[in-house]
Amino acid sequence: MKKSLGAKNLGFPAPVFMVGSYNDKGKPNVMNAAAGGICCLTPPCIYVSLREATCTYHNIMKRNAFTVSIPSDKYMEEADYFGLATGKKVDKFEVSGLTPVQSELVDAPYILEFPVVISCQLKETIFLGSHTMFIGEVVDLKADKEVLSTINVKEGQELTRINIEKVSPLIYDLSLRGYYKLGEKVGEGFKDG
Amino acid sequence: MKKSLGAKNLGFPAPVFMVGSYNDKGKPNVMNAAAGGICCLTPPCIYVSLREATCTYHNIMKRNAFTVSIPSDKYMEEADYFGLATGKKVDKFEVSGLTPVQSELVDAPYILEFPVVISCQLKETIFLGSHTMFIGEVVDLKADKEVLSTINVKEGQELTRINIEKVSPLIYDLSLRGYYKLGEKVGEGFKDG
Repeated sequence: MKKSLGAKNLGFPAPVFMVGSYNDKGKPNVMNAAAGGICCLTPPCIYVSLREATCTYHNIMKRNAFTVSIPSDKYMEEADYFGLATGKKVDKFEVSGLTPVQSELVDAPYILEFPVVISCQLKETIFLGSHTMFIGEVVDLKADKEVLSTINVKEGQELTRINIEKVSPLIYDLSLRGYYKLGEKVGEGFKDG
Repeated sequence: MKKSLGAKNLGFPAPVFMVGSYNDKGKPNVMNAAAGGICCLTPPCIYVSLREATCTYHNIMKRNAFTVSIPSDKYMEEADYFGLATGKKVDKFEVSGLTPVQSELVDAPYILEFPVVISCQLKETIFLGSHTMFIGEVVDLKADKEVLSTINVKEGQELTRINIEKVSPLIYDLSLRGYYKLGEKVGEGFKDG
């Protein structure tokens, strides 16, 4: 028996994206966004949805670029702090002790200590209401060597891919606001069905 | 030491969305989309990104509506099948044995057996390249009573919310194409930081 909870958009696992940007003075900032994901393969695009009240919103509007750094679960407290504090009042990098690094390809900083980093050039800005969707074209995906795996695609052909089990990313519950680890593997996509 | 993997958009956990729609003859169809998520709070909006080659793309274009049903992990094989098969050739509901139900509020069917169901009216269509982003305004969120929890917000005020641990949703790895369970809880959002 299903119960209606009204016009709400909760109830599924979300990624934990740390959005890096520079303000107009070149000061690096980072914020936690659960509203983010993949939205195109060719060209590769990801998005983050942000409120206008955030520093990051205005930074992306001015700089036309952002990064997304993916924290491993051991950085849960830092990730949550990046969502609680505001770049208007504090230097979040300084307080957290984490290190901003200028992306070589876009005008935005990423977090050195986080295992996966995505650099994006702003492609589209979609105003939806409380949140604005910033769609970025991915110009570079970078990962720590420790989280990579080499797989054999076929005889003599190898492919280097990110191994999500080694990344051990955080997962966010939009409904009751919990952070979770990735659990056990239960199947293979494009295969088990 | 970080290694660059080029302009790719992989490496983070994605939700597993089952997108329900009707074709122009009223036949229900469902497909598996890992490119989906939340994109606005007010009005509440979620999106799915689809290739033009899919039936669902044309169904949404014609009907201006879709649903998203969230499978619990015990439906991994059915979920993967919904991504492998095409509605052009088979009736995926018939083959899987799962039950399409007409949403009361939008012109699209959802999956009875899946614990969380979101009904969306199409709000925006964004053409990005290989994929088109369908942004839907959530008009109803529905969940099985078994996956709900009542929490005390303050003295005498209770709130009914979806409990993600009871939903036990699938999580998809875009990089190596694995399905995962939700793991253990490691923190509280807007609190531990």
